[in-house]
Amino acid sequence: MKSKKDFLKDAIKHIDIKQYNVVPLVDAMEHMAFSARSLNRAARIYDMMLKDRECGIILTLAGSIFSAGLKKVVCDLVMNNMVDAIVSTGAIMVDQDFFEALGFKHYIGTPFSDDNLLRDLHIDRIYDTYIDEDELRICDETCAKIADSLEPRPYSSREFIWEMGKYLEDHDGPKVDDSVIFACYKKNIPIFVPAFSDCSAGFGFIMHQTQNPTRHVSIDSAKDFLELTRIKLKSKETGIFMIGGGVPKNFTQDIVVAADILEEDSPMHKYAIQVTVADERDGALSGSTLKEASSWGKVETTYEQMVYGEATVVLPLIAGYAYHKGSWKERKPKEFQRIFSIEGAVA
Amino acid sequence: MKSKKDFLKDAIKHIDIKQYNVVPLVDAMEHMAFSARSLNRAARIYDMMLKDRECGIILTLAGSIFSAGLKKVVCDLVMNNMVDAIVSTGAIMVDQDFFEALGFKHYIGTPFSDDNLLRDLHIDRIYDTYIDEDELRICDETCAKIADSLEPRPYSSREFIWEMGKYLEDHDGPKVDDSVIFACYKKNIPIFVPAFSDCSAGFGFIMHQTQNPTRHVSIDSAKDFLELTRIKLKSKETGIFMIGGGVPKNFTQDIVVAADILEEDSPMHKYAIQVTVADERDGALSGSTLKEASSWGKVETTYEQMVYGEATVVLPLIAGYAYHKGSWKERKPKEFQRIFSIEGAVA
Amino acid sequence: MKSKKDFLKDAIKHIDIKQYNVVPLVDAMEHMAFSARSLNRAARIYDMMLKDRECGIILTLAGSIFSAGLKKVVCDLVMNNMVDAIVSTGAIMVDQDFFEALGFKHYIGTPFSDDNLLRDLHIDRIYDTYIDEDELRICDETCAKIADSLEPRPYSSREFIWEMGKYLEDHDGPKVDDSVIFACYKKNIPIFVPAFSDCSAGFGFIMHQTQNPTRHVSIDSAKDFLELTRIKLKSKETGIFMIGGGVPKNFTQDIVVAADILEEDSPMHKYAIQVTVADERDGALSGSTLKEASSWGKVETTYEQMVYGEATVVLPLIAGYAYHKGSWKERKPKEFQRIFSIEGAVA
Amino acid sequence: MKSKKDFLKDAIKHIDIKQYNVVPLVDAMEHMAFSARSLNRAARIYDMMLKDRECGIILTLAGSIFSAGLKKVVCDLVMNNMVDAIVSTGAIMVDQDFFEALGFKHYIGTPFSDDNLLRDLHIDRIYDTYIDEDELRICDETCAKIADSLEPRPYSSREFIWEMGKYLEDHDGPKVDDSVIFACYKKNIPIFVPAFSDCSAGFGFIMHQTQNPTRHVSIDSAKDFLELTRIKLKSKETGIFMIGGGVPKNFTQDIVVAADILEEDSPMHKYAIQVTVADERDGALSGSTLKEASSWGKVETTYEQMVYGEATVVLPLIAGYAYHKGSWKERKPKEFQRIFSIEGAVA
Repeated sequence: MKSKKDFLKDAIKHIDIKQYNVVPLVDAMEHMAFSARSLNRAARIYDMMLKDRECGIILTLAGSIFSAGLKKVVCDLVMNNMVDAIVSTGAIMVDQDFFEALGFKHYIGTPFSDDNLLRDLHIDRIYDTYIDEDELRICDETCAKIADSLEPRPYSSREFIWEMGKYLEDHDGPKVDDSVIFACYKKNIPIFVPAFSDCSAGFGFIMHQTQNPTRHVSIDSAKDFLELTRIKLKSKETGIFMIGGGVPKNFTQDIVVAADILEEDSPMHKYAIQVTVADERDGALSGSTLKEASSWGKVETTYEQMVYGEATVVLPLIAGYAYHKGSWKERKPKEFQRIFSIEGAVA
Repeated sequence: MKSKKDFLKDAIKHIDIKQYNVVPLVDAMEHMAFSARSLNRAARIYDMMLKDRECGIILTLAGSIFSAGLKKVVCDLVMNNMVDAIVSTGAIMVDQDFFEALGFKHYIGTPFSDDNLLRDLHIDRIYDTYIDEDELRICDETCAKIADSLEPRPYSSREFIWEMGKYLEDHDGPKVDDSVIFACYKKNIPIFVPAFSDCSAGFGFIMHQTQNPTRHVSIDSAKDFLELTRIKLKSKETGIFMIGGGVPKNFTQDIVVAADILEEDSPMHKYAIQVTVADERDGALSGSTLKEASSWGKVETTYEQMVYGEATVVLPLIAGYAYHKGSWKERKPKEFQRIFSIEGAVA
Repeated sequence: MKSKKDFLKDAIKHIDIKQYNVVPLVDAMEHMAFSARSLNRAARIYDMMLKDRECGIILTLAGSIFSAGLKKVVCDLVMNNMVDAIVSTGAIMVDQDFFEALGFKHYIGTPFSDDNLLRDLHIDRIYDTYIDEDELRICDETCAKIADSLEPRPYSSREFIWEMGKYLEDHDGPKVDDSVIFACYKKNIPIFVPAFSDCSAGFGFIMHQTQNPTRHVSIDSAKDFLELTRIKLKSKETGIFMIGGGVPKNFTQDIVVAADILEEDSPMHKYAIQVTVADERDGALSGSTLKEASSWGKVETTYEQMVYGEATVVLPLIAGYAYHKGSWKERKPKEFQRIFSIEGAVA
Repeated sequence: MKSKKDFLKDAIKHIDIKQYNVVPLVDAMEHMAFSARSLNRAARIYDMMLKDRECGIILTLAGSIFSAGLKKVVCDLVMNNMVDAIVSTGAIMVDQDFFEALGFKHYIGTPFSDDNLLRDLHIDRIYDTYIDEDELRICDETCAKIADSLEPRPYSSREFIWEMGKYLEDHDGPKVDDSVIFACYKKNIPIFVPAFSDCSAGFGFIMHQTQNPTRHVSIDSAKDFLELTRIKLKSKETGIFMIGGGVPKNFTQDIVVAADILEEDSPMHKYAIQVTVADERDGALSGSTLKEASSWGKVETTYEQMVYGEATVVLPLIAGYAYHKGSWKERKPKEFQRIFSIEGAVA
């Protein structure tokens, strides 16, 4: 009988785009066709965003990409002022980033697993990756502990994630080299998780609310929307860099309309790129084209590019291109987190 | 120059599964291969859920399926005690169902549109469907009005959607024959939208919160999770019928783990079917197999079936099969909404 | 240890579209969106082809669809004058249709198989379907026998498949109710397999040529192209009904250009529908749109429709719709096979 | 009114993998998940093939990849003894490789084209790439001319393609730096196109056969199959590197069975990798897994890897990895073309 240790041996290692100068390779793709050419154009549009002084850059993340080795890529974007706000699924930020910051790891597995055996061993599978379920429970509980420590009131996910960064700081920092939550905490970059209960944090919240039935922390997703809209209102121009679709994509596109509704005239997202394998023909949002988004008044069509590809291969090329082009060196941090501190949204 | 009227001419009509006895057709698919056979098995598993007196049935909805003509299918499931709780994206429930309940329509369009022209005309496009943007703004505002009318405190999406049903009742009922929100209101079927700000309601909420900066309604997604978990705890057995993936899929699978965390021993979902075109190879949740979910302890593998297909074609066949088999006739409504009334969660 | 019999128990049964009047169901799809609406339009375009007296209808087949239970659908189209020529992969016509005509069957299996065990048991797997490898060898050998019996010269695939039909007639007819090869033989409907060696017949050919190194049958794919082009030249208007893509799609689209090259002015395909799940973004032919084909002068854009869906579910609906609409009742068989008999191409 | 020149301005440039040492990048992917990890494993399996002295390497090509800028990649594999035989679609070898060898080019276009206008201008579109239809006609005619010059008899595609290489040599060589047909001609590497009429050459063949109705060149696809099977019989071990699926994939997998049928005991393909975006769930061959192939006795499961990705991005990484690892430096050319010269198959 195999034990848990037999399965949890080889840890996922995060790719370091700083090590690989892919600029010449990606430049060559400009003159090809299909995904190569669209990847090249997306990389150049991202570089345009970085050169545009007026442009606030919002990164949206969906899909299980940090467990897949892409955490350090995003960390490097954060540390080098290549992104000004992040909108993410809960799984990426809590189950994966915060989880690793607590000292736990993801492991190399295989899709050809006996899932009933894995369940018996308390191993969770994400396609070809394994997680220790017992470690994940500790992550849940840590979220509950953070909630317990806070003044009972409605919080935006951004506020709570800031508290998670603070928790890490107060506990000798992350147990790993790279944590996006911690890096954003230090760099004043807000992180939003619009469906915040739909992850490990959610388990923490229900522990917290069950134990504190009348006075407790609640997670106000409306506040999230309002706060992200405020960022749009503060930033003259915006560009969005979307990995996958889902709620983060929709939410971030919607702030243009929200800004308009708040009666402060706001331009569409000037730049927009998306990496996805989703098809547009089923009508779902994840695969809907950026041209379609322009009918909604969300995205300008001049600098938009969809890239048909899976993120683990495509993101290191796009992000690596932009990193090695170096346009970020001239770029000042926007520190959008300060919008809320000044306004008193963070205590 | 074309006007808005030239584009918004032919309204989407919702298919009525009660009119088409597809049982013999779907039965024939049992002996075929590929999607036909998996569709047949999914339909039979759904029928098993309906026959299982102990089984609470949770329907999850993602993708733009009500604007595509599938609203009446879900309405018929609701009216005939074929579903006990719904977990949905906001777009389906608010931008599509509530929107139509206010008297507005979706229109037949084409993916080969000039999206810049559509934007100028205030027409929003969903692949091959058009919406009047100005009517959508009225939907946003109605949500704001409802929020304005409520006592300021954190609400679960379930509570707020119940208020939307009440709003319809107080305003002479829906302006169309079928409204899922209204039908569920009448039938005591809870509806959850875990990412509730990510839709037309979100626009209403930010209007409301902007105008009421200190005392206002907030949307507590943690409460959603807790409430849906309570349904799992009350229902001995559960079956999930998933259209598309996204947050509704993940959220509903997670309640098994949540129930376990609340230390009340709770079985996995006994039945699980999903209709999707998403691929599993990018590791994203929407296409992840139900066998993978079983490694997480969420879904039993005995009665699970993925169907590879697009919902507008597949759902009428699966739902129509179960409707015409008639097992629902013996089924009692579970009225899970009452869990919360009794506990005082609804004022 | 399991034996072959444990796996080869439940035979695939072919769906009989004549039993299910899907016209009202498919009519309802006209007013929906996404695949349902495109399915409806494709069905109506097929019905238009059947009503157009001048229109020769070419059916192209790819994907493993006969082993999946769609053989009888095509047989019914053949027997009811709903198709005038077929262009297919070799697997469908030889490994599947001729194979079953020899008395063998396909069996229900599962994608979650131990493929090494299957190999040891001489069981071949197609996703969720099993085949007895030893029976397939008999099919190979029968093709070799037919080749041995013919005058040594180059043959088009159409000629050889006609000989396969004759072989069945000379051996007391097919051992099953339905055989497309036999039905087409009786109805003078030509069948083309442009990559004819790429199937069970290919194994037969190499046995034949190895045993007859100097004087033997050869398979002239250029002759195929010339013959199919002649059909285009004889038929004033043409419509193509494509299931999947691959060589059959490309080959059949190309005959418009071929007809043009032979300097006889020939119109484009007037009608064109395709059922496919292939994506267009990788630039491969199978997923390339019919609008793209119109840039090549192959397909008119007025009556073209792609349907995004898997054939086992979609084909019974489209073919069933056209069957029950009954426009074929007024339609005369075109018997394109006679073009070649008169010209002496068949001995 | 736009003219042809307005569209045919920017030529596709083929990527040169020799310029980009992607080894460190691809090595980093070993420790990630999803496509990155499978890409890494495929690259390492390809390197294993190159190190295995007994292993003959067969490259299969499908999809419109040479028009997309991948021609030089394949040329470099040929010139550096990294491939021993090629099995391809006709479009890649004739419409794209031979076409460019005649001095013509592919041009950068867009999928958002007015295809009716393109048709009027004699511009053919492949997703986001343009071709001059009039130049393609010259390519057709050149194939006809070559056929006219040959002794009338059945030819394998391999033989005819060798004649195309000779034609280039006799006409001062290719008009471009790289031609796979010419490189293979010089290096004695056989190229097979099992559906040879399904491309520009097919147009040439029908011109030739129409003008020479009784004595003419024919294309014997059975001979193709026999010849490729002979290569399998001569080569102790084989590895297959598949780009896309289609007939080239199926044909090349089938030679294992063919070798077995010719009663000479032949091992399965020892190594097999495939790059594809095709789904397995529709049962079509292009997306069928290599594990499924092992049930047919075609592929060993020890060293097989599917990579889910689009070729323009993935192939430069896999081929570039193997090139820069340099294992090919120790590798001797197998010159399988000589099998047929010695046996007199080529006049």
